[in-house]
Amino acid sequence: MESVDTLINARWVIPIEPATSVLERHAVAIHQGRIVAILPADEAARRYSAHEVLDRPTHALFPGLVNACADVGTPAVMAVDNGSPAGPWMDPERVRDTVELAMARMLAGGTTSFAATSQFPQIVARTAADLRVRACVGLPVLERPTDWAGSVDEYLEKAAALHDDYSEDPLITTAFATSDPSHLTDETLQRLRRAADEIELPILVPLHERELAVALAVERLGTRPLERLENLGLATPQLVGLHATDLSASDIDILARAGMHVIACPRTSLRGGGIPCPVVGLDHRHVNVGFGTGDQSSLDLQGELHLASLLGDRDASTSPVLSPHHALRMATLGGARALGLADTTGSLLPGKWADLCCLDLSLLRTQPVRDVVSQIVRLAGADQISDVWVAGRALIVAGSFVRLDCAAILERAARWPA
Amino acid sequence: MESVDTLINARWVIPIEPATSVLERHAVAIHQGRIVAILPADEAARRYSAHEVLDRPTHALFPGLVNACADVGTPAVMAVDNGSPAGPWMDPERVRDTVELAMARMLAGGTTSFAATSQFPQIVARTAADLRVRACVGLPVLERPTDWAGSVDEYLEKAAALHDDYSEDPLITTAFATSDPSHLTDETLQRLRRAADEIELPILVPLHERELAVALAVERLGTRPLERLENLGLATPQLVGLHATDLSASDIDILARAGMHVIACPRTSLRGGGIPCPVVGLDHRHVNVGFGTGDQSSLDLQGELHLASLLGDRDASTSPVLSPHHALRMATLGGARALGLADTTGSLLPGKWADLCCLDLSLLRTQPVRDVVSQIVRLAGADQISDVWVAGRALIVAGSFVRLDCAAILERAARWPA
Repeated sequence: MESVDTLINARWVIPIEPATSVLERHAVAIHQGRIVAILPADEAARRYSAHEVLDRPTHALFPGLVNACADVGTPAVMAVDNGSPAGPWMDPERVRDTVELAMARMLAGGTTSFAATSQFPQIVARTAADLRVRACVGLPVLERPTDWAGSVDEYLEKAAALHDDYSEDPLITTAFATSDPSHLTDETLQRLRRAADEIELPILVPLHERELAVALAVERLGTRPLERLENLGLATPQLVGLHATDLSASDIDILARAGMHVIACPRTSLRGGGIPCPVVGLDHRHVNVGFGTGDQSSLDLQGELHLASLLGDRDASTSPVLSPHHALRMATLGGARALGLADTTGSLLPGKWADLCCLDLSLLRTQPVRDVVSQIVRLAGADQISDVWVAGRALIVAGSFVRLDCAAILERAARWPA
Repeated sequence: MESVDTLINARWVIPIEPATSVLERHAVAIHQGRIVAILPADEAARRYSAHEVLDRPTHALFPGLVNACADVGTPAVMAVDNGSPAGPWMDPERVRDTVELAMARMLAGGTTSFAATSQFPQIVARTAADLRVRACVGLPVLERPTDWAGSVDEYLEKAAALHDDYSEDPLITTAFATSDPSHLTDETLQRLRRAADEIELPILVPLHERELAVALAVERLGTRPLERLENLGLATPQLVGLHATDLSASDIDILARAGMHVIACPRTSLRGGGIPCPVVGLDHRHVNVGFGTGDQSSLDLQGELHLASLLGDRDASTSPVLSPHHALRMATLGGARALGLADTTGSLLPGKWADLCCLDLSLLRTQPVRDVVSQIVRLAGADQISDVWVAGRALIVAGSFVRLDCAAILERAARWPA
């Protein structure tokens, strides 16, 4: 018998790769943080001697969700998501407490990897490393000064330094993160492109988020933002467009041609009468799509998934429905690919890190089980996540946090005024 | 000391009437199924000797939700809500099992009253009466034959008979329920109006659900459906328009002038690229609005509330945001008013039936509590409902069903093929 750390037996295993595969009564074997094998449970019992065996008889086991656009550092996380933007604040301790609460919320909902764009990248990186959650830390590059840096030069220097600081941490990666490109000069965008080429990082860019902003950009600069990025040489597979709701046919051509990625944030986009990202149309054109919670302080990726699968596309010229399998793939492997993490996480393949979650289908809401993936995507709630592992390390077991002290996190959060 | 059956002490009590009131550390006293008083918890302890005292120190207590448009009898409840309509089936036992599962799901999510439009009104009424859930049973009136009746005459006769059967049950009321009026002749609509006048029932009507259907109706009949209903004398406070997404300014004038009600079903309306009901604009014109889950087999009214509060209106000429207080009021009293139940339920007023639910805010998702109503509407999940009472009778206590045998309900559901 081969010795492994952990064997998880689940009623259903959804590996995401191969696409649409659903394995019944399978086991996932984990050793030294990585997936070793996925095989029928009875075979696993004969083949592996595991330090720990977990049975999840009414559960689906699938890759941890990837929240590829998570606003983890804003006051809204600790206050209320009431539609009006909260003012910024700069107390690092408060930011840390907020980021920690945000990460705990994400884990509780099955998210094992996230990308955050924040003005406090060092706090996000440190907190994720402390809590041992997988993070792609957005390194801001802006033309306006913030507490983090005062000039494009300083943003780029600090970005490179922070990137180097975590180059040995297997959980922490980085990406450049800019504001709407319409607020950046050609020069800054080209410097950004060169910097990203040099250290091979993704660039996270809010893109075509609202019709009005696109129209204003066209009026001022003469081109749509995506067209401008292409003209400046930034339309590459490193570019990750966040939001991307107002997409014309030629915008989608640019995205497809360049192999760019799109992160849809359905709730954020719909807020106050907005339109959703046309994820079905993008998928048809083989543009890689992931999901994010954007400015939603719930940080509930499951809810985004549910909404995305409900919405489909407004454009009836393509089939308007997002299949549950496609939706779950976007919420895992799609996000991982966008963040450059597809070799590491996002699907259950031997050799990848064991970033996993279990969802309990035994609740009224998801019974009887007829089509497990549909029921996860369209009916289950974030509260049905029972277990979460990041790189094989259990953070939530049978509904309870085992390594994070949630009471302490909440106590620290409650200290701060609203 | 005055003797009462139950005293519930809650961290927050949200009575809905008066509007926007949030009472801290209050108690609700219940006797013989009805609300006796709402008062500070310390005062309640001095004044009442209760058979049973419940402390809910991290919870909000508010009226049970009213799901004013619930598709409880379709196969989707037991199958998967996968976007394609399931075919009808006629086995009464299967319908009963489905309706029972639907009711259990609704209760679990804090819904204490619902209106159902179904071709099996007798099964819906019987099951609700058995389970002791408050129901407004839709009595179908159609021009096409179904298993229930073969002609308008027969529909109307059977409707009157079923209405009489339950006239003594305090939990069961009835309403007429038609299909899209564009599929009914003037004569049938006028007969329906006379019948509803005679026995004073609401009329539930799917109305302006999709732009295309409205356009086709105009082409065929020369008027928009709402205008036609007004011409035929059906624009009255008895009329409850379901869905109502495609509303012009003059449509809203008709609704406001007539004192009609609207039931918004946000998820159903958004499905596949549809537009939402303009609830903010309707509210500004004092059109009473309630919420329903429509064709969503989750039957999760909390999710509808969340989505409605996120969406606001597309029409930016009015303030686009639905305030959390307004949203919660619509989901309780608004629905009750539409169904003619406002004297009975929908708010916490002494004399009304004790239809209540408790929601536990101690979870990560809703901590720290800064604005309890916002956090209930925008962040909480249906799983946070901890207790549910219908007419003072506890059905869920501290997260568990106490009178329904859920295991048996699920077992019965699982018998049927997908």
